[in-house]
Amino acid sequence: MNGMITKPQTVPTIALITDFGLQDSYVGVMKGVILSICPHAQIIDLTHAIQPQNVRQAAYVLLSAYDYLPPGTIVVAVVDPGVGSARKSIAIKTDRGYFVGPDNGLFSYVFKHMTIQQVVALQTPKYRLDQVSQTFHGRDIFSPAAAHLAAGVPIEELGPSHAKLIELEMPRLEFNNNTIHGEILHIDHFGNLTTSIGRLQWSADDFLELVPFFDPLAEKIYIRPESCAVQIGDTIIEPLGLTFSSVREGEVLALINSAGHLEIAVNHGNAAHRLGVTIGAPVVLHAKGK
Amino acid sequence: MNGMITKPQTVPTIALITDFGLQDSYVGVMKGVILSICPHAQIIDLTHAIQPQNVRQAAYVLLSAYDYLPPGTIVVAVVDPGVGSARKSIAIKTDRGYFVGPDNGLFSYVFKHMTIQQVVALQTPKYRLDQVSQTFHGRDIFSPAAAHLAAGVPIEELGPSHAKLIELEMPRLEFNNNTIHGEILHIDHFGNLTTSIGRLQWSADDFLELVPFFDPLAEKIYIRPESCAVQIGDTIIEPLGLTFSSVREGEVLALINSAGHLEIAVNHGNAAHRLGVTIGAPVVLHAKGK
Amino acid sequence: MNGMITKPQTVPTIALITDFGLQDSYVGVMKGVILSICPHAQIIDLTHAIQPQNVRQAAYVLLSAYDYLPPGTIVVAVVDPGVGSARKSIAIKTDRGYFVGPDNGLFSYVFKHMTIQQVVALQTPKYRLDQVSQTFHGRDIFSPAAAHLAAGVPIEELGPSHAKLIELEMPRLEFNNNTIHGEILHIDHFGNLTTSIGRLQWSADDFLELVPFFDPLAEKIYIRPESCAVQIGDTIIEPLGLTFSSVREGEVLALINSAGHLEIAVNHGNAAHRLGVTIGAPVVLHAKGK
Repeated sequence: MNGMITKPQTVPTIALITDFGLQDSYVGVMKGVILSICPHAQIIDLTHAIQPQNVRQAAYVLLSAYDYLPPGTIVVAVVDPGVGSARKSIAIKTDRGYFVGPDNGLFSYVFKHMTIQQVVALQTPKYRLDQVSQTFHGRDIFSPAAAHLAAGVPIEELGPSHAKLIELEMPRLEFNNNTIHGEILHIDHFGNLTTSIGRLQWSADDFLELVPFFDPLAEKIYIRPESCAVQIGDTIIEPLGLTFSSVREGEVLALINSAGHLEIAVNHGNAAHRLGVTIGAPVVLHAKGK
Repeated sequence: MNGMITKPQTVPTIALITDFGLQDSYVGVMKGVILSICPHAQIIDLTHAIQPQNVRQAAYVLLSAYDYLPPGTIVVAVVDPGVGSARKSIAIKTDRGYFVGPDNGLFSYVFKHMTIQQVVALQTPKYRLDQVSQTFHGRDIFSPAAAHLAAGVPIEELGPSHAKLIELEMPRLEFNNNTIHGEILHIDHFGNLTTSIGRLQWSADDFLELVPFFDPLAEKIYIRPESCAVQIGDTIIEPLGLTFSSVREGEVLALINSAGHLEIAVNHGNAAHRLGVTIGAPVVLHAKGK
Repeated sequence: MNGMITKPQTVPTIALITDFGLQDSYVGVMKGVILSICPHAQIIDLTHAIQPQNVRQAAYVLLSAYDYLPPGTIVVAVVDPGVGSARKSIAIKTDRGYFVGPDNGLFSYVFKHMTIQQVVALQTPKYRLDQVSQTFHGRDIFSPAAAHLAAGVPIEELGPSHAKLIELEMPRLEFNNNTIHGEILHIDHFGNLTTSIGRLQWSADDFLELVPFFDPLAEKIYIRPESCAVQIGDTIIEPLGLTFSSVREGEVLALINSAGHLEIAVNHGNAAHRLGVTIGAPVVLHAKGK
């Protein structure tokens, strides 16, 4: 029988997010490097289907996934249009775990929710592969760094302190009387459209108004789902739903998704195809009353 | 060197099958939840490319794969058009292993081949995530339940008994003198067409006639491959082959596939493209003599 | 916290490369078989997106990935157009690790860089599944063989010695005064074009001239990147770059990629789409001076 585990041991966990796809052996090679150094690591693929070079999409997807990873997970993120240029390779320790990747803003969104404790530039030769290519730092620098962290090497041995991190510009989110203007951040496998209206920036004071959508138990309720409308292109969707099946099959709906963001979907259908929308398209949330 | 394992330990194994795709972090998030609870579980991805909401396709793919999973594997299946509605979240114990998912018939086909011992509704709050969304029970309910089972929690702690399981309608399979009428159940990566004519319903008396295709050692041989013809659309294929290379490259053939189902393929080619066929298309097996 | 591993144990590692895709449960089934036999194996997916039946592409991808796998890794490669025919199922031991798959040349390229020690035909019934299908030896023969090797079974128990391996024809690489003629071997997820000009055949004397591209520290420098031009179709690219960002966004460039092969790419773009090129297209490297 399966199970009957009496004393689970700590297992080092490494989570990968890249734009490498699964067509080539790039991801497999990273895992080979990791397991060569830390043979019993657990490796989680968050996704390898980030749009090529779309750092902001990766930052959002990482934000939406992060809270569900085991505490202490080492995240390796490689969406790296500047590979081989002057951009730094870094590792960061926060109060929640480790992060390894290029210093290009990939971690900006997730760092809104934690405290950075240490940042180093990945320069120590013994913690890189012997030969470092100009085009595949995921293999030559990031995977070895993550695996050495997983195997217990202290972060300060990986290289000297790195002072200032690149920050990604936040996606569009403007408050204006009773409207909030945002944009499409991500389109998922089902064609559901994730907007920038959500938890990503919810620490903004204005945004308290949306708390009830994320936590129905919150005390402050300024906007209620039933008095909202969402506009995307020429389409108006109202009120907000709670589940996909709150509308008939084939109908468009808007809801707060499982990552705490406003999402536009079609019950049993594909909203991106239906509405002809791509990443970056503007979206407006109208609050019709307080 | 690799290997030289002298005393393998029992490792809890969890197998996932979903329609989530690999474009987003949905699957990675499920793995994060699982490994947070049971850090040393082995996780097997059966597939995440079930057609969105196609419960019947998932039921078939699970059937075709199940016999090859380690005994006691905990299967988590999430093809869940009713998420957030009244449908129940369940865990089932059988004589062969555990199953976790929505009560929508996903397991009906695989359950034809085993004995159900216990069914519970996943209601115990401590074995769910603290916040349960309306749209992602794979993360909030099913993954935690599976991981707790893997970590040794008895199934009865997950919630109260659940009396009656939803059953999926069986795919088309009609016997009529010397013909069997079925339909296309699944199209694989190579464009091979799996039909409903096969092991799924082979306990039907009529179906004994096809046993020889599945087990050449069976004693009862009523139909021989060389006296069969398969019809799909306007195409007639005869006789049945045994391997892809039993016809020339580019030619259509029919054989009993490795899951015990009648399959239509093109040697070195793509039968779905060649024949212009989609899931659900009718297929007829003609037995020309006994 | 993650990590703090003081005594890493040897963990058997199995790497998979197939043309099965991830649409079906074929890969998951192989993992199920492997973990049934060797429950704590680490499994690495190199890729499952080899073009159906393209043995040569698989041989190249395996070559490009192999050096990064843990020493002793057991590679299972299944690109197997001859499944069910007379081709042999084999396991090979080399000075670097184990290889399991059909005897169709899949391993020819990677074997240029290692010493073969032992070859057996996979015939011992107890190390196969009880029923062996005609169409899925990845499940019935190769996965069990790899898992038994991982669990410590000596290779000679898997079957009798096999004398002679099928060798794959090498891809095009012709030297001609100051030009090298090659072809496109692989197109990656980003649309980058990998050519046959590279490390695969670099032990050829003529090829010493290209060593500097692979190892800038090598002493013999006959050709310098700045005096080369690459021709593909009507497009001339010169000089060779070192990184993607050595040209402006949207521009075509050529460089030596991270696997040691001449590659044609577009900075922030897709070279395959831009140049309308498919696998097999001819490419010429012109060396303009010594």
